[in-house]
Amino acid sequence: MTKKIAILGASGYTGAELCRLIQTHSGMEIVALSGDRKAGQPMASVYPFLRSAGLPDLIRIEDVDFAGVDLAFCALPHVTSQNVIKDLPRDLKVVDLSADFRLRDPAEYAKWYGKSHDAQEMQGEAVYGLTEFYRDEIRTARLVAGTGCNAAIGQFAVRPLIAAGVIDLDEIILDLICGVSGAGRSLRENVLHAELSEGTNAYALGGSHRHLGEFDQEFSKVAGRKVEVQFTPHLAPFNRGVLATCYVKGDAAAIHAALRASYDAEVFIEVLPMGQAPSTHDVRGTNYCHIGVVADRRSGRAQVVAALDNLCKGSSGQAVQNANLMLGLEESAGLMGLGVFP
Amino acid sequence: MTKKIAILGASGYTGAELCRLIQTHSGMEIVALSGDRKAGQPMASVYPFLRSAGLPDLIRIEDVDFAGVDLAFCALPHVTSQNVIKDLPRDLKVVDLSADFRLRDPAEYAKWYGKSHDAQEMQGEAVYGLTEFYRDEIRTARLVAGTGCNAAIGQFAVRPLIAAGVIDLDEIILDLICGVSGAGRSLRENVLHAELSEGTNAYALGGSHRHLGEFDQEFSKVAGRKVEVQFTPHLAPFNRGVLATCYVKGDAAAIHAALRASYDAEVFIEVLPMGQAPSTHDVRGTNYCHIGVVADRRSGRAQVVAALDNLCKGSSGQAVQNANLMLGLEESAGLMGLGVFP
Amino acid sequence: MTKKIAILGASGYTGAELCRLIQTHSGMEIVALSGDRKAGQPMASVYPFLRSAGLPDLIRIEDVDFAGVDLAFCALPHVTSQNVIKDLPRDLKVVDLSADFRLRDPAEYAKWYGKSHDAQEMQGEAVYGLTEFYRDEIRTARLVAGTGCNAAIGQFAVRPLIAAGVIDLDEIILDLICGVSGAGRSLRENVLHAELSEGTNAYALGGSHRHLGEFDQEFSKVAGRKVEVQFTPHLAPFNRGVLATCYVKGDAAAIHAALRASYDAEVFIEVLPMGQAPSTHDVRGTNYCHIGVVADRRSGRAQVVAALDNLCKGSSGQAVQNANLMLGLEESAGLMGLGVFP
Amino acid sequence: MTKKIAILGASGYTGAELCRLIQTHSGMEIVALSGDRKAGQPMASVYPFLRSAGLPDLIRIEDVDFAGVDLAFCALPHVTSQNVIKDLPRDLKVVDLSADFRLRDPAEYAKWYGKSHDAQEMQGEAVYGLTEFYRDEIRTARLVAGTGCNAAIGQFAVRPLIAAGVIDLDEIILDLICGVSGAGRSLRENVLHAELSEGTNAYALGGSHRHLGEFDQEFSKVAGRKVEVQFTPHLAPFNRGVLATCYVKGDAAAIHAALRASYDAEVFIEVLPMGQAPSTHDVRGTNYCHIGVVADRRSGRAQVVAALDNLCKGSSGQAVQNANLMLGLEESAGLMGLGVFP
Repeated sequence: MTKKIAILGASGYTGAELCRLIQTHSGMEIVALSGDRKAGQPMASVYPFLRSAGLPDLIRIEDVDFAGVDLAFCALPHVTSQNVIKDLPRDLKVVDLSADFRLRDPAEYAKWYGKSHDAQEMQGEAVYGLTEFYRDEIRTARLVAGTGCNAAIGQFAVRPLIAAGVIDLDEIILDLICGVSGAGRSLRENVLHAELSEGTNAYALGGSHRHLGEFDQEFSKVAGRKVEVQFTPHLAPFNRGVLATCYVKGDAAAIHAALRASYDAEVFIEVLPMGQAPSTHDVRGTNYCHIGVVADRRSGRAQVVAALDNLCKGSSGQAVQNANLMLGLEESAGLMGLGVFP
Repeated sequence: MTKKIAILGASGYTGAELCRLIQTHSGMEIVALSGDRKAGQPMASVYPFLRSAGLPDLIRIEDVDFAGVDLAFCALPHVTSQNVIKDLPRDLKVVDLSADFRLRDPAEYAKWYGKSHDAQEMQGEAVYGLTEFYRDEIRTARLVAGTGCNAAIGQFAVRPLIAAGVIDLDEIILDLICGVSGAGRSLRENVLHAELSEGTNAYALGGSHRHLGEFDQEFSKVAGRKVEVQFTPHLAPFNRGVLATCYVKGDAAAIHAALRASYDAEVFIEVLPMGQAPSTHDVRGTNYCHIGVVADRRSGRAQVVAALDNLCKGSSGQAVQNANLMLGLEESAGLMGLGVFP
Repeated sequence: MTKKIAILGASGYTGAELCRLIQTHSGMEIVALSGDRKAGQPMASVYPFLRSAGLPDLIRIEDVDFAGVDLAFCALPHVTSQNVIKDLPRDLKVVDLSADFRLRDPAEYAKWYGKSHDAQEMQGEAVYGLTEFYRDEIRTARLVAGTGCNAAIGQFAVRPLIAAGVIDLDEIILDLICGVSGAGRSLRENVLHAELSEGTNAYALGGSHRHLGEFDQEFSKVAGRKVEVQFTPHLAPFNRGVLATCYVKGDAAAIHAALRASYDAEVFIEVLPMGQAPSTHDVRGTNYCHIGVVADRRSGRAQVVAALDNLCKGSSGQAVQNANLMLGLEESAGLMGLGVFP
Repeated sequence: MTKKIAILGASGYTGAELCRLIQTHSGMEIVALSGDRKAGQPMASVYPFLRSAGLPDLIRIEDVDFAGVDLAFCALPHVTSQNVIKDLPRDLKVVDLSADFRLRDPAEYAKWYGKSHDAQEMQGEAVYGLTEFYRDEIRTARLVAGTGCNAAIGQFAVRPLIAAGVIDLDEIILDLICGVSGAGRSLRENVLHAELSEGTNAYALGGSHRHLGEFDQEFSKVAGRKVEVQFTPHLAPFNRGVLATCYVKGDAAAIHAALRASYDAEVFIEVLPMGQAPSTHDVRGTNYCHIGVVADRRSGRAQVVAALDNLCKGSSGQAVQNANLMLGLEESAGLMGLGVFP
């Protein structure tokens, strides 16, 4: 039977991407879309590309009738999200796409987000939504916290290497090139076409990016000791995609073998043949993550390069994958579409 | 039962787009892919974005076993196409994406393509593949000739107006802005990123573009008299999409009504509310065509603006739509996906 | 002796472009930059690409000492501009880049800009800044009104044809493709990289674009009768440049001859050989305008295609060219730089 | 007196960039342009943006009269370059922009370029053209070898740190994001707009990029011991610019101080205030290099980020700067233009 879905905060890019994915998902049906500032508008006014999707109009959150809803995706800004989610019906399954429930430790949350959490009692309840590593917990979870898109790609590339003990834990550098949709539909000068096109720059340098909180939490958990990575994201002029070039110390063949072993049974994670590196072009619009390993000319050093679509596998596609598990649907349902190229 | 599909000339962009569309089509299965220069290679080497599609390797045309094939898409260059198609089994259904069978008159073909046709006996047999206007003929056709992408958008915008007699037939101007994928995977300086990005230019000015042959043939047929349009395509720095701004003389309300009437029952053609104009952003990666009408400040003049994706509705999506009809499948099967935005 | 220059409203794109041009102008020196919201900041904070230009910090307009200033460029938003300019010292030469003094008729201003003008007594004083056609008046003007960028390119392409009587005055269509910097540094969703890149759309259709006021005024003046053109601008994903494809009725050879005759002695207007069409790529970052003429296949019809850089020849370069005349400097001083390609 | 300049291989991007720069250079005049495949064509046909530059037509190299030429820029492909240069008049000053004379050791040349050098006797004569570090040798050189663009940016960022002994020589990682013009006007699928736009990828991973030969040579020379860096370039969808994010181990304040000290008197190298990072947008079309230093959250680690324009400071601008020195002209002549933004 088709599951009834609500999307809260549907007027942002991740909300629109959820609509796109669910529109061809045979097991889900969207019954409510909220968007406070745009309440009353048809979704086709906010996103004309959804004109043909037969979606309900945007309404205010307080006007959503959750009675018949099986699962809500919450695509609200952080802080707003925690305050909305804490008041949702207790029996409603929720996949949160914000940063609000990613960190388990209230002190870590306060450190990275600059305020104390308003729903600390729910922080422990939430399951971290990196599907390939939390599949069993997600299946039975009520609240799943979607990961950061940068956090997702970094973990896909490096997490199995930490678990397998094949790299030096003190020498992990994650260098990312990020598409601009990661900034959301926010109006800032640096994401204007006129200012972004035809160039690139690094940002959030030196350890200030909030996704470091996720890396610290997860990598330290896997390693059983404190792990701190060096992380530099760059903004480049394309809309979708993140490329992670990870500099690690270890044997390249062992690294490749550890990734192959970890992802052997995974539908959405492709480990390329040794020596090949992926491109974000090849995963655009998809739920796939491609990972490659190249040995450096200096022995004992390697680059692990990963590519995914930040809005799909890094956010809304991951969210649908998790919702599939929570709702007892086929994990890959609605997510097998290939990318648009060129 | 799933229909067996061969794609001849699968290494170009329209071939790759066919693979993308058919991969999620429940009624079709790709059993053979040919690509002479790349024969022997897996499709994932030629197009890594198809890595997960489980496609057969590329082979030479002469190695394709057509015995079990229900339909062949022919995505070869023109001239090559006519020579391949004339030697295909006579009971094989064929959708040709080249220009070779679009023009019925051998003299017109020779005029626009600079050579005499090598399979003139088949020119009459071919059905012109503008689905919404040749649906019945396509259903029973053995050979369907896919339209030019520019020819498709121009006809979607203007054809119903000629049929309805609501515009001046001597004053039709079709001004197009075209994405670069329309040029195919050809290696020319003007389609290099370095030369195309950050600017625009007109090309094939003054009546030299070959798609004029299609406009002349089809518009004159509908009008019952000779109709010659003025047509200027522009190349702009985006990959997919064509926007047609058509300057016509007639009553805007009557024009809008004629389009609404013509496309009322069509799944893939959306006529926007009066006064609204479409964007190629909203149809990227889809089989939809959006059309809008705006009255000019001078009475008796209007602009009809249409948008579609040249590789999909303008080429490979149209081809699948036609193949669905030819094979007795649901016309929209495999084509209902929404666009990727942003 | 070097002329002292003030730029009011220097924090927008035209202000920044003025700084770029004047920085290599041997006859001008910038002594004051105003930018109310960013007052107190160094220009290098607002535009890091100007870091090496040795510019004064931004201050508030009321803090500018006009005593030693020879000429002020006013790059403020319209309405603001008229209110600032009416209070400037009466002996200060001013080049206004806003729309405020382009229209001579207060009723026309009110019609296109939706309000009555606050400095109507100065409207008559202002000289229209299309240099090549108002050179003598500009030389002795106190106040010059820079043209709209679209208005400039349309006039460069068509004005000599009206003057020469070689085209049908009732059948002029100006179809433009515009880069996004024409929208200024404004924060709107449709100029975000994520929403603009990879597509195009028409806007201000049907006769609503304000630059029509300039076309009406100027073309009617040249023709000695009312002339109303049809005008459709498109927004495409590049930063600088406007391409105008003008559909006109007349003899192509006569049209080409009229353009050649009109621009024979002009440094910045290049009329290409008959049959060639220009590209915005070739004028990016320059004060040049390239114009081409192509005969249509239907006799008596032609396309005139023009290309210029909206921020330079269409705005700030034009402003410097005018200022050179007003200050008795070489007209082309500071403007001979070639474009950056690729 | 104006110096007479010949450009050999003027039909590539670096040749065109030389024309652009020299056109506004008061001390140089272009008297000959060669381009074998395009010999006989005016430069305006090959690069219409140079239409107004008054350049001589392209001719074959053997038709260049070197009698009155003061200096030749050689912008030919590598290997071709060495064979042309070895036959040039012995008293002709030459700036070579190819890779042919960058490596002093014939064995290193053979290792990185896969063939033995055809003019080994001239390898020792050539001066490495990194102006800021070889200024005195360049002044008296007959043959200067322009550096690789990636080699230039990496050295600007790291060379002073090696010289000052403030970083760990075994732990240098150079991560680059490169614009596509670095690939030249070559016709390859991966630099087509359709394939490059909207995504990114790493290339030449693992130590295979030829610019490593320059890093090894120069860094080892400065350090007085063997230094091998890890180097990963990425290709991203913009035309001009290279951003280098360098991961180093050392005290960030000492690193910043060493850069400031090294570049204090340099016109073209700007070291940003501590904690700031540059953008390629701000140096596009210029001869400037911006460098920033950010301390990592882990003490003893820092990122040094540098930005320059690969065609200008990374190639043709550097070449003009060197030629200025060789010809006794002002070092910055013709190079003080600011970038085009947006």
